[in-house]
Amino acid sequence: MSKISVLKFGGTSVKNIGRINHVVDIVSKQKNKCVVVVSAMGDTTDYLYDLAKRISATPNKREVDLLLSTGEQVSIALLTIALQERGIKAKSFTGAQIGIKTDNIHSCARIVDICKGSIRAALDEHDVIVVAGFQGQSDCGEITTLGRGGSDTSAVALAAAAGADECHIYTDVDGIFTTDPNKFPQAELLDTISYSETIELARAGAQVLHPRAAELARDFNIKLRVRNTFKPDNPGTLITGDSNVEKVCRVKGVALDSHQAYVSFIDIPWQFSFLTECETLFLRDNIIVDSVSQGKGSCENTRCVQLSLRYSDEAIFRTILDELKNQCGAKDVLIDLNVTRVSLVGAGIGNAPEIRSRAIATLNSARIEPRLYSSSESTISILIDEADSSRATQLLHDQFISLPEETECVAVTSPLTVGAHSSRQLAAASDSMRAGVS
Amino acid sequence: MSKISVLKFGGTSVKNIGRINHVVDIVSKQKNKCVVVVSAMGDTTDYLYDLAKRISATPNKREVDLLLSTGEQVSIALLTIALQERGIKAKSFTGAQIGIKTDNIHSCARIVDICKGSIRAALDEHDVIVVAGFQGQSDCGEITTLGRGGSDTSAVALAAAAGADECHIYTDVDGIFTTDPNKFPQAELLDTISYSETIELARAGAQVLHPRAAELARDFNIKLRVRNTFKPDNPGTLITGDSNVEKVCRVKGVALDSHQAYVSFIDIPWQFSFLTECETLFLRDNIIVDSVSQGKGSCENTRCVQLSLRYSDEAIFRTILDELKNQCGAKDVLIDLNVTRVSLVGAGIGNAPEIRSRAIATLNSARIEPRLYSSSESTISILIDEADSSRATQLLHDQFISLPEETECVAVTSPLTVGAHSSRQLAAASDSMRAGVS
Repeated sequence: MSKISVLKFGGTSVKNIGRINHVVDIVSKQKNKCVVVVSAMGDTTDYLYDLAKRISATPNKREVDLLLSTGEQVSIALLTIALQERGIKAKSFTGAQIGIKTDNIHSCARIVDICKGSIRAALDEHDVIVVAGFQGQSDCGEITTLGRGGSDTSAVALAAAAGADECHIYTDVDGIFTTDPNKFPQAELLDTISYSETIELARAGAQVLHPRAAELARDFNIKLRVRNTFKPDNPGTLITGDSNVEKVCRVKGVALDSHQAYVSFIDIPWQFSFLTECETLFLRDNIIVDSVSQGKGSCENTRCVQLSLRYSDEAIFRTILDELKNQCGAKDVLIDLNVTRVSLVGAGIGNAPEIRSRAIATLNSARIEPRLYSSSESTISILIDEADSSRATQLLHDQFISLPEETECVAVTSPLTVGAHSSRQLAAASDSMRAGVS
Repeated sequence: MSKISVLKFGGTSVKNIGRINHVVDIVSKQKNKCVVVVSAMGDTTDYLYDLAKRISATPNKREVDLLLSTGEQVSIALLTIALQERGIKAKSFTGAQIGIKTDNIHSCARIVDICKGSIRAALDEHDVIVVAGFQGQSDCGEITTLGRGGSDTSAVALAAAAGADECHIYTDVDGIFTTDPNKFPQAELLDTISYSETIELARAGAQVLHPRAAELARDFNIKLRVRNTFKPDNPGTLITGDSNVEKVCRVKGVALDSHQAYVSFIDIPWQFSFLTECETLFLRDNIIVDSVSQGKGSCENTRCVQLSLRYSDEAIFRTILDELKNQCGAKDVLIDLNVTRVSLVGAGIGNAPEIRSRAIATLNSARIEPRLYSSSESTISILIDEADSSRATQLLHDQFISLPEETECVAVTSPLTVGAHSSRQLAAASDSMRAGVS
C-alpha cells in the first residue's frame, strides 16, 4: 500500500484561480498519494451566510447547511479541474460522496464515521482525491456542516480513516504563534506545540486549529503540521503528543475571545428551573456557558443569575435571551457584549495559583479590572472590558512569554524539579494561527 | 389528496433577495400544495462555468456538473428560508434528495425516473417543497446536470411525477412571442400554442421553453403556462395539446439560432470512415449535426465534406474539429462561425413547398443568399450569413405572420378546406420567450 498524505487548504489559499493554481503547484510536488481537503473560496461562507441573514434573523439551520455546503463544492470542482489540467489523475468528492457520516445537529454536526472503503477505493483509482471540508451527511440524507473550523476536523478525520502518514494544514500564516501576530509584534512562531495546548488555545478563542481537529489528532495520534501556503518550503509548526512539556508549568500562549457576553437576569421567580431551561435553549444554538453565579433577588422568592457565555451570532443570541426572559418571568435582563476573555494557556498552569495571582496583579497594576476569572487544568481565563483587551494581552505576553525564565514554576500535579530551559520551542506558545474560517 | 401546482422560476426571477421575496409573494397566494422549482440566481451558472473555463479549455464534465449544481442549491436554500420567514411550511430538496434519477451523461443528462413516493411524502409534511432545477443524480451517486433549459425539464418531470394539476413556468417576459420581442417590435404575444410548435420553435433556436420540457409535457399531457414573474396576474401563454391547429398549415413563429457553424473538410482520404468518427466525437460534446453533404476531393481517392452544425462552447468545438482533422488526415478544415439559421415554424409547413419557395423568394428579393436549407414536418430552416439575420427575420415575420391571411394554405398531409381565421391566437407564434438559462 502506497503512503498517503492529507493536505488541507483554507479559504485564503483557494480564494481565486491564481491561488488554486498555486495549490496545484504544491500538490504536484507530493510523492505520496494525496487526500486534499479544501474550504470555500475566500469569504464565500460569510457571503452566503449574510444572504441568509438578510432574509431571516434566525434562518433555519438545515437550510443554512444546504446553503453553506455549496462553497466547498465549488472549490473541490475547480481545484480538481486545475489538477487534471496539469495531467494529475484527480477526482472530487463532496462530504456525502466520500462517506463522511455525521450526526444530525445542523450547523455544528460531529463526524460519527468515515467510510474507509470508499477512500481506499478512490485512492486506488486516483493519485489525488479532493474532498470538500466542513461538510458531511446525516443518516437521513441531510447535508450537515461541522461549524467553524470544520475543514480542519474533516482533514484530520480523513487522515485517521485513510491511515495517512502525515496531515498538513496549509493556511495564510507561518504556523502557530504565541499570540495574534497581526495585532502584537512580539508574537513568536512556535516550532512545536502539544495537542492539548493547541486544544486549550483554540478553546480560549485563538484562531488556531479547531479544538475538535486537535482532539481528533491526539486521539488517533496523527502528526499535524500547520504551515504557510505561500511559503511551502517553511516547516511551520508541528503539533504532536505531549512529551516532557507536560512536566513544566509554563504559559505557552495568550488568547483573546471577544464573542463573549456577560448577562444578568434580575429577579427570576425561584420556582422556575432556570438553569435547565438555559442549557436546553443554549444547546440548540451552540451558545457555550462559561460560568454561572446566583444570588438572592430584590423581592421575596426571587433570585438573580449572572452568566458569562460565548455566542456566535448576535441576533440569534438576543432572540434566545428574549425567549428565556419571557419563559422565566425575570424582571429585567442586562446584556453586556463589550467584554473580552483573555486566557493564558499552558499545560498544568491551572494548578499553579501563583501564575493566576501574578496575572491578576499585572492587570491590576495597569488598572484593568477582572470582571470574572476561572481556571481549568491548562487555562486561566479572565473576563475584562473589551476596551482593555489589547493592553492586557501585551502586558500578559510580556510578563509570561517574552520573559519566560521568570515564569517557570513546578506544576502542582507534577512536582518534578525543573531547571532553566534554553530550548526556544519550549519557551513560547501561540494565540493566533489564523486558520481558514471553515 | 389535495391539489398540487408546480411553479418554476428562472434565474432572473431569483437573482437577488428582493426578487426572492417577490417569488414568496406569488407562492403565498397559491391555494394548492406547491412544488417550486428554481434555477440558479441570475448569471450564477455562467459565472461558475467561466471560472472552470479560465482553468481549462475543456474542463472535465463530471466536475463541471458538481460545480454548476451549486447554483440551484443556493437558490433553494435562500427561497426556503424566505418562505419560512413568512410562516409557510417549506423545505428544500436538491435533485438527489427528491429522487431525480438521471443517466450518467454529464452536462446533458436525461431524467430516467423520479421517486413519486418521496415527493408525496414531502408534500404530506410541507405545504411547499422547493426543488433544485437542472440537476439530478446518476445510479452511481454522481451529480448530473440536464443541460441548458434543464430547470424547465425538471419542473415538467416533477409535475408528471407528482400528478400535478398545473405547471407554471415563470420568467421575465410575458409569454411566448411570434419572434424575439427584445429585437423585433412587431413580435406578438401568443395566448396559446401547441406542444409540437413549442418544441419546433425551441429546436430552431428560440429561447423558448426547452424542447425536452415541451416533449415531456406533451407525453404526460401536462398543461403548461409560460408567464411573467413581474406581472403575475397576466395569464401568459398556455401550451396545450394540438387541436384543430394541426389542420391549418401556417407559419406560427420565426426563430434564430446563431450557435451555428458551417465547416468544410478538404481532401479526406476515402478509406477513413469520416461520418462514423464525426458522430462519435460530436455526441461526446453535445454537438448537433444538422446536415452533411459530400463531394469528390481535388486529389485521387479523397473527398470533401460540408457540415452544418450546432455547437455550444466554441473552444470545445474547435478542439474537437482539430482532433477530427488529425484523425482523418484532411488537407484542410474551413470553419465559418458567422452563420445563422433562421427557421419558420408551424405545424405541417414542411409539407407545403409553396411556403418554402415564398420564403426563399422573399430573401432573394432582399439579396440575402441562403447557404443551405432544409425542412422537416413543421420547420423550414435556412442557413444565412449572420450579418443578414435581423433583416431576414423582419422580412419573414412581415411576410408570414404580420400578414397572416395571405399565408394560409392547406397542409399537404391534411388536405382539409380551411377558411380565413379571425382568432388571434391562431394567427401568431413565437420565437422568443426568454426562459431562464438553466
